[in-house]
Amino acid sequence: METVTTKRLHLYTGSSHPGLAGEIADHLGIELGDANLRHFANGEMHCRYGESIRGADVFIVQSHSGEAGQSVNDSLMEQLIMVDAAKRASAKRITAVCPFYGYSRQDRKAEGREPITAKLVADMLTVAGADRVVSVDLHSGQIQGFFDMPVDHLTAMPIQVDYLRAHTDPTNLVVVSPDSGGVKAAKRFANEVGADLAFVNKFRPQGMANEAVAANIIGEVDGRSCVLLDDMIDTAGTICAAADLLREQGALDVWAMATHGVLSGPAIDRLKNSSLTKVVLTNTLPLPPSKQIPQIEQLSVAPIIGQAIESVFDDSSVSEIFGGRNQS
Amino acid sequence: METVTTKRLHLYTGSSHPGLAGEIADHLGIELGDANLRHFANGEMHCRYGESIRGADVFIVQSHSGEAGQSVNDSLMEQLIMVDAAKRASAKRITAVCPFYGYSRQDRKAEGREPITAKLVADMLTVAGADRVVSVDLHSGQIQGFFDMPVDHLTAMPIQVDYLRAHTDPTNLVVVSPDSGGVKAAKRFANEVGADLAFVNKFRPQGMANEAVAANIIGEVDGRSCVLLDDMIDTAGTICAAADLLREQGALDVWAMATHGVLSGPAIDRLKNSSLTKVVLTNTLPLPPSKQIPQIEQLSVAPIIGQAIESVFDDSSVSEIFGGRNQS
Amino acid sequence: METVTTKRLHLYTGSSHPGLAGEIADHLGIELGDANLRHFANGEMHCRYGESIRGADVFIVQSHSGEAGQSVNDSLMEQLIMVDAAKRASAKRITAVCPFYGYSRQDRKAEGREPITAKLVADMLTVAGADRVVSVDLHSGQIQGFFDMPVDHLTAMPIQVDYLRAHTDPTNLVVVSPDSGGVKAAKRFANEVGADLAFVNKFRPQGMANEAVAANIIGEVDGRSCVLLDDMIDTAGTICAAADLLREQGALDVWAMATHGVLSGPAIDRLKNSSLTKVVLTNTLPLPPSKQIPQIEQLSVAPIIGQAIESVFDDSSVSEIFGGRNQS
Amino acid sequence: METVTTKRLHLYTGSSHPGLAGEIADHLGIELGDANLRHFANGEMHCRYGESIRGADVFIVQSHSGEAGQSVNDSLMEQLIMVDAAKRASAKRITAVCPFYGYSRQDRKAEGREPITAKLVADMLTVAGADRVVSVDLHSGQIQGFFDMPVDHLTAMPIQVDYLRAHTDPTNLVVVSPDSGGVKAAKRFANEVGADLAFVNKFRPQGMANEAVAANIIGEVDGRSCVLLDDMIDTAGTICAAADLLREQGALDVWAMATHGVLSGPAIDRLKNSSLTKVVLTNTLPLPPSKQIPQIEQLSVAPIIGQAIESVFDDSSVSEIFGGRNQS
Amino acid sequence: METVTTKRLHLYTGSSHPGLAGEIADHLGIELGDANLRHFANGEMHCRYGESIRGADVFIVQSHSGEAGQSVNDSLMEQLIMVDAAKRASAKRITAVCPFYGYSRQDRKAEGREPITAKLVADMLTVAGADRVVSVDLHSGQIQGFFDMPVDHLTAMPIQVDYLRAHTDPTNLVVVSPDSGGVKAAKRFANEVGADLAFVNKFRPQGMANEAVAANIIGEVDGRSCVLLDDMIDTAGTICAAADLLREQGALDVWAMATHGVLSGPAIDRLKNSSLTKVVLTNTLPLPPSKQIPQIEQLSVAPIIGQAIESVFDDSSVSEIFGGRNQS
Amino acid sequence: METVTTKRLHLYTGSSHPGLAGEIADHLGIELGDANLRHFANGEMHCRYGESIRGADVFIVQSHSGEAGQSVNDSLMEQLIMVDAAKRASAKRITAVCPFYGYSRQDRKAEGREPITAKLVADMLTVAGADRVVSVDLHSGQIQGFFDMPVDHLTAMPIQVDYLRAHTDPTNLVVVSPDSGGVKAAKRFANEVGADLAFVNKFRPQGMANEAVAANIIGEVDGRSCVLLDDMIDTAGTICAAADLLREQGALDVWAMATHGVLSGPAIDRLKNSSLTKVVLTNTLPLPPSKQIPQIEQLSVAPIIGQAIESVFDDSSVSEIFGGRNQS
Repeated sequence: METVTTKRLHLYTGSSHPGLAGEIADHLGIELGDANLRHFANGEMHCRYGESIRGADVFIVQSHSGEAGQSVNDSLMEQLIMVDAAKRASAKRITAVCPFYGYSRQDRKAEGREPITAKLVADMLTVAGADRVVSVDLHSGQIQGFFDMPVDHLTAMPIQVDYLRAHTDPTNLVVVSPDSGGVKAAKRFANEVGADLAFVNKFRPQGMANEAVAANIIGEVDGRSCVLLDDMIDTAGTICAAADLLREQGALDVWAMATHGVLSGPAIDRLKNSSLTKVVLTNTLPLPPSKQIPQIEQLSVAPIIGQAIESVFDDSSVSEIFGGRNQS
Repeated sequence: METVTTKRLHLYTGSSHPGLAGEIADHLGIELGDANLRHFANGEMHCRYGESIRGADVFIVQSHSGEAGQSVNDSLMEQLIMVDAAKRASAKRITAVCPFYGYSRQDRKAEGREPITAKLVADMLTVAGADRVVSVDLHSGQIQGFFDMPVDHLTAMPIQVDYLRAHTDPTNLVVVSPDSGGVKAAKRFANEVGADLAFVNKFRPQGMANEAVAANIIGEVDGRSCVLLDDMIDTAGTICAAADLLREQGALDVWAMATHGVLSGPAIDRLKNSSLTKVVLTNTLPLPPSKQIPQIEQLSVAPIIGQAIESVFDDSSVSEIFGGRNQS
Repeated sequence: METVTTKRLHLYTGSSHPGLAGEIADHLGIELGDANLRHFANGEMHCRYGESIRGADVFIVQSHSGEAGQSVNDSLMEQLIMVDAAKRASAKRITAVCPFYGYSRQDRKAEGREPITAKLVADMLTVAGADRVVSVDLHSGQIQGFFDMPVDHLTAMPIQVDYLRAHTDPTNLVVVSPDSGGVKAAKRFANEVGADLAFVNKFRPQGMANEAVAANIIGEVDGRSCVLLDDMIDTAGTICAAADLLREQGALDVWAMATHGVLSGPAIDRLKNSSLTKVVLTNTLPLPPSKQIPQIEQLSVAPIIGQAIESVFDDSSVSEIFGGRNQS
Repeated sequence: METVTTKRLHLYTGSSHPGLAGEIADHLGIELGDANLRHFANGEMHCRYGESIRGADVFIVQSHSGEAGQSVNDSLMEQLIMVDAAKRASAKRITAVCPFYGYSRQDRKAEGREPITAKLVADMLTVAGADRVVSVDLHSGQIQGFFDMPVDHLTAMPIQVDYLRAHTDPTNLVVVSPDSGGVKAAKRFANEVGADLAFVNKFRPQGMANEAVAANIIGEVDGRSCVLLDDMIDTAGTICAAADLLREQGALDVWAMATHGVLSGPAIDRLKNSSLTKVVLTNTLPLPPSKQIPQIEQLSVAPIIGQAIESVFDDSSVSEIFGGRNQS
Repeated sequence: METVTTKRLHLYTGSSHPGLAGEIADHLGIELGDANLRHFANGEMHCRYGESIRGADVFIVQSHSGEAGQSVNDSLMEQLIMVDAAKRASAKRITAVCPFYGYSRQDRKAEGREPITAKLVADMLTVAGADRVVSVDLHSGQIQGFFDMPVDHLTAMPIQVDYLRAHTDPTNLVVVSPDSGGVKAAKRFANEVGADLAFVNKFRPQGMANEAVAANIIGEVDGRSCVLLDDMIDTAGTICAAADLLREQGALDVWAMATHGVLSGPAIDRLKNSSLTKVVLTNTLPLPPSKQIPQIEQLSVAPIIGQAIESVFDDSSVSEIFGGRNQS
Repeated sequence: METVTTKRLHLYTGSSHPGLAGEIADHLGIELGDANLRHFANGEMHCRYGESIRGADVFIVQSHSGEAGQSVNDSLMEQLIMVDAAKRASAKRITAVCPFYGYSRQDRKAEGREPITAKLVADMLTVAGADRVVSVDLHSGQIQGFFDMPVDHLTAMPIQVDYLRAHTDPTNLVVVSPDSGGVKAAKRFANEVGADLAFVNKFRPQGMANEAVAANIIGEVDGRSCVLLDDMIDTAGTICAAADLLREQGALDVWAMATHGVLSGPAIDRLKNSSLTKVVLTNTLPLPPSKQIPQIEQLSVAPIIGQAIESVFDDSSVSEIFGGRNQS
């Protein structure tokens, strides 16, 4: 008994961000499959694939978001359950697509006796049965090494750079890192756009009490337009304080730009009341109506994720999507 | 360099049910350690052990509860993070104590393309770094086999049997299983107490539409006191309907008894308005004030968990706690 | 160098039940491959595939039977050796087809310090190199969770239900579970056939010595035809005693029905001398001539196994074989 | 809670060779524990430790023998089940003691599409939960490398050499390998004893049909006493033919010496009717009464296994048992 | 048989940096064990422990250095072989002490189709049998997450800070990062010392060809003493160019400070001819006579490694060595 | 989305023996891919595939050679890095082609406390991500069992036998093993060629000091042509001494034949000055100009490796390359 091998693509989404998954499906020209997601009364989750996925190349999209009545852990667990069910339903290959990878900031022990939860998440995806991972702008490139499977690490940078080039004058622009850890990423970005570079330095002034912290700007911003760059905006405290500082130092206009709009707790209030005139995010995380304020603009990563899925499915190069360049 | 090896016990709790952990600590005559549990603004969790646990025998108590503003998944993830941190902090041995084991009902595929989430939970505990597990009245004994590590599977049955013997007349008592799947457990219980046995049978009557379901009692209950027995009470729909049916069939009095009081959604309302005169639960799950109604009585499992931890620590027999009998 | 991928199916059998494997091959319209099975003088086993299986989709059929001069362990080990050889011969995918899964009753610890051998068997198949498993009517559905690979859990129920419908009058039929643990399965079966339900209850009578055990029937059987249902018949002690009890309670006629005819030790003598008028088994296990008595009828599972293998090979749905329903 | 760590030794035996285990227990001055070994009617095996082994250092002795109504596979499976039960009963460390290691001859692929069953056995012991292995005179030293755990590879050579020195005149002795593969072992042995060396060479004579095989002795044996040396004697065909050939070439007297007396099928008859005047074996395998013939003499390995267990238990050197020399 | 458990410490070194291992042994007050390291003629390596290490707590010190006629790969492989031998010799616990961790810079994919060799090294240490790792100032803290075992990540910072405090005037000092990626580490250092912060920014000037790169200093250095800080100095190109640039910008004096003195290829010549007046390194890597130039000063990490080994051995806190602070 | 699956072959080489890889590519009619191998200044290695290998069947050729300025460890590590990069670049299947397998002689513990490095190498290839291995004339066949993945174990014997048949008169030829461990291999070879057999026996003469060793020839060589056969020639000490001894015993002419020409240290000098008239090697290892002496003749294994790669790629039989015979 001999026959030619064929392969088929199935795309599913968890319940954390169906909008993005829908856009990806549109990009691919296919329909989202039905995973019959349910919650039991006590909050335990369940799924059941509505069609046979035996032998299929299955992609399961889930942003590890804490929106929509689900915690980050709920989003993660839902994806793991879907992966487990796909494995037991004889999918040939399972790709966990995590536009926002939860716990990515806990990627090392900053102090003794802490967890490295980003590694735990990687191990959980592995043990559930994922064969590969697609993610966007991981908090650190080393997270790729937390996996023994292939990771397609996409970046929103081309989209962001295009946006800046179209909407600003690079020759008067300064890319500003809101802290010392982000200077490298800001530099790469500045080089790409053709802008200058600065960063916000927090320090303990001489002779002051241990806890007191001051901040200054290292780099020239007076009379310039500034873009504060970060991989994510969570409570927005750092970025809003940085914007104020930049204004104090004479910046003409201050924008913020980030891939992931986590926007927890006081974030929306802070942004609304900040000196930021524009906040450019992508849609790796959902932006519920309650968070839609005039300053925020969302760029879609659906095209790059869709293109990556297509490449994974038909074995063509993913790094060529980014002109041979991957984010590290 | 040669020295005698010593061992020391550390007990920690997640945030889902600190009350039970405190009782266990009291039983052991030690203090709970401090794991500095925190939630970040977006719901990601964190812990940091407040003291060195290097080389220690660490027990991490967490019921996979959905109470207290946490979902079941949050409770599970918190425990996994604590296990990961303990592993990286060089604990010698880590025991995950799960008085209520989440997702235990999803222990097999009832239909095609479903997950087996109870196995996934076992794999997650394993990959996080747990060396052994302690749990109480697992939904099925086979869940022990989901682990390659030792599982101490405790049972509340001795406590429950003692209670019934002290508060009822066994010679006029019938232990009733609310469905066909629980008959075996009910029988073991009935034998232990010296009571009779019955069960509620749901069936599709001949000639009726496919969905219609009727129920009858198989066994004698007329003029008898009845105890409905289950491993857990979740939404309480089944157990309250069974109580009504028993009353219709002439039962004098109907109690319900279960190890795990999940009590989700409409459960409390249903119990309050049911024909049940007493609902005897244990404290494997927390009973927040909003759920404390007069019918409900809580028995404490802290002594048996405490005794088990002591036995694990000093290498004495756990099954002897139960007179040589383990629940299967 | 680029070429289209093809796949081909190879079917092999161990020596425990070649008859069933032959029927499956016929169903598939292919020939059984030759594995050159041998025993060395000291009982060590050996195999050598007679043709190249490089890149092939290999199915290795072996019931874990203790017939034909082989112990259950011999049957199991022979299959493991065949799996190892197939792995080292570069088979692309190896499916262990276990119509009867050995040690399935040892699926949990009934007491302390026991093994969970059904999990050990799962781990052995995994470590030998199986990629997936096909089995029929596992003793408990949870055994699927003992595997991290896909398990196609088939059921003989449709065949059995069809047989009963064709040979009995359901309106006067009672499906009887021979013990309290089988009530749930009997109920599902009764619902499917449209029959009533009863079970045999063993109990310790009040005031009797600890060891004394009595039994009664819970449910109505007087003047009815009864079918005792179990997943397997081993020594036939329980089922024959149950038949006698049913007769005493006025049953008109008593049959037994089970998927697996283990039929060890005194089984055949007991069945021959019992009040059972018919014993309906399937051929998941061989029925050697010495065990062929008039009461026993064998239904063939070759069509459902054959169909499942076909579905696995060409990636179509297995659960549709059962009209969307799997046994759990 | 802090306490000093203690350890205790428990010794168990499977049912294949209780005599040897008893001798080992005597050597250690302890009693064998009770594992309550049982066979179910269909041949499935079971064990249940009769006492708590929580935290214990457990040694499980089982020769992979095909005697005593058990096949080699039965012996192996019994040991695996005992290991699994010990693991689940929280033994601290489990040592599988395999005086004769089954399938050791299948340690490589002699042809394509064969298994490497000796590796499979190693993987099975590992997956069942063994932490270490003790064995005697493995068929090849490379089998140690099949394990990732420590293997204490003992050798009966010192006992055998002592015996030869005490019972023969080394200056007139020739150690003879019965085939070309054993020359190296024979040489080491000859050097140890101070004897000469020869071997039996099988070859295809020029101009003869493909299958014809002749044999000659390479080395001097005329007028000498000869000891044929092998690691095991299975059907005894090779060794008896070699003895005849040695006699033809003028050997005064021919003995055979081997660690493992497998003695399958025609072995006893062949030895009885052979020109061998003495066959010196050890008791790694049982010698049932039906196999006790005058030529066979058994040396006990209980002292070396006992000493090794003692060393493993109290962390002293095993290689010093053999004067710093291990067999390879 | 019951006895008290004891533990003993054995310390071994590979051949890459015996001097440091000797210092550590002195700190611990013990002697280095003898591993009988050898090279075969074709460069394959070998070891054989000169004493029994059964049950011992074994520490194997090896810096992944390319000095002393060994390549980095040779140093790594030697350590792996020593770990394997210790595992097979029944060591109870094996700690790989890697003062300099090889390939730590290849900790992520900077471009597509690259390896993540730092993860590969972690997997190799794991598979060889290491139970834990001790290292100093890993290139990125995320490398800890490459391991599932505990990693004690030590830092030379306290030693370096003490040195600077003793030998400079912090109020006139600027800590300078030689590139944008090191700003965060430089900031932490500056805060600790009480100094100011600056960094060297490389950029592509507007309108220039793609490859052209210019550099400027961001931060104030005119009239200040500067310390260039990095985790390692390899070819010294970056650091020497940065020193020149600092001088051009008016720096009074420029030092360089780094934990790891890799000093490959042209490094020594460059340092000798640079504008650096002092280069402060530690001895995580050997400094052969040919590399000992007047500018270079070496601080010893032996005390902190020795203290960490002591803590690992007797289960006391390692993070307290650093006053509760670990490097991240 | 459904499509036909295709597969494509990519062939890469490490830097240890590009000549052989080139010959293999020629045999396959394809071009070697470009892996952009680089060494950093401190000797750390790097690769980056120059083209997309997503979904490809990748073969990575590397002999574990110590030539060309690389140590054996460098060659091994380079291959591991290439495997890791291929895995992370989403290759579908990765075959490590190791014409000479490093550390193959360290395949067992000859003494206590030694490593089994050949197993460590197997584990390293596995953990790096290899899916299968191709090698030639492993030092022992058991090394196949060190892998759980398929190993295609090729042999140069057909090429060597053809050579001997073409260049010698088998009826006057003796195949001689240079030591007792190689007699079996020599016998198989002699049978294949139709030649006689002998071996060199080293022994300790009676009454001599412990260290003294003598040697004699066992078998007839007087007036015969001799071929000394071994799997590899390393320092050539044994083989040259054996040649002298054969001459002393009257051999007419002495050749040496081996698959692997390791030729370390004094090997070339010894061979040049030996009584060997011809040394026939294969090109599994490179023969740099400095080692090219008149006696040495090299046979190419490129055709058999090329054919094996072709078979692996298109799922045809490898053992048929050798007429159904594999080397063991």
